[in-house]
Amino acid sequence: MYTAQKVVIITERVILDRVAEIIEAQGATGYTHVSAGGKGSRGKRSSNRPGVSGISANVKIEVIVGSLEMAEAIADAVAGAFFDNYSGITYVEEVQILRPHKFLRIDD
Amino acid sequence: MYTAQKVVIITERVILDRVAEIIEAQGATGYTHVSAGGKGSRGKRSSNRPGVSGISANVKIEVIVGSLEMAEAIADAVAGAFFDNYSGITYVEEVQILRPHKFLRIDD
Amino acid sequence: MYTAQKVVIITERVILDRVAEIIEAQGATGYTHVSAGGKGSRGKRSSNRPGVSGISANVKIEVIVGSLEMAEAIADAVAGAFFDNYSGITYVEEVQILRPHKFLRIDD
Repeated sequence: MYTAQKVVIITERVILDRVAEIIEAQGATGYTHVSAGGKGSRGKRSSNRPGVSGISANVKIEVIVGSLEMAEAIADAVAGAFFDNYSGITYVEEVQILRPHKFLRIDD
Repeated sequence: MYTAQKVVIITERVILDRVAEIIEAQGATGYTHVSAGGKGSRGKRSSNRPGVSGISANVKIEVIVGSLEMAEAIADAVAGAFFDNYSGITYVEEVQILRPHKFLRIDD
Repeated sequence: MYTAQKVVIITERVILDRVAEIIEAQGATGYTHVSAGGKGSRGKRSSNRPGVSGISANVKIEVIVGSLEMAEAIADAVAGAFFDNYSGITYVEEVQILRPHKFLRIDD
């Protein structure tokens, strides 16, 4: 098992493509995203039913990278580019990877 | 980077609003939720296709809080209120936050 | 609080049922899955809008187990069975469980 870092970005769905561009510009070659709803500190509630009739206002994006430095660079770049104008949070979690050479292969 | 705690609650979708009320009553000002399917120890399978035709029986709720005490309080309150009558699990993960003053801003 | 292990498998949706069989064959009695989109190292993008019109090519599967040995066994079995032919990653995260006797009860 090898230690890696998972960057999680939860933000508004409308900027998914632009966030993805920043993730790739930082050197990550893969990411995963899921539709999300939620409520934030400004007290406004987004879709309570992600997946229902296709409406979901937020998105949770995950990126696995090899180093904490790269994780922080991605989080910093996304927060700097968007979090003044769009709601969002970003955090990093340590994960254990079985096969480090495989951790970027998410596609279909 | 600052250490924070992520409380994860996976339970039945029908009680999402009531779980959200308990989360907010504990003092958290934001949460994120995604639709989920799955199978549990009683051997019954919920929707295998979350997002397909809008049917998804479970929900995964995440709350970022500053302290382990608050994380445990939320997990305890939710489990105490619902897990005798509804299926569910709750667990806590440590996360690293870039900007602690921002970690509650999830809305749109 | 008790320490447990969360195995995360992100792979192609078409093999969800077969991955679930392997998870159960390893002795886990419950799992959770959510629809996901993403992009991988081969540069191909799957659905950018999971939940929208029911199309989502990837799935993120989570399994909570009691030991790191079991977590690795599940990750190894899934990777061995599928990752030569299907895209996927798997990683393990440590989680804190409030009530260990409950952590398998995900059903509805």
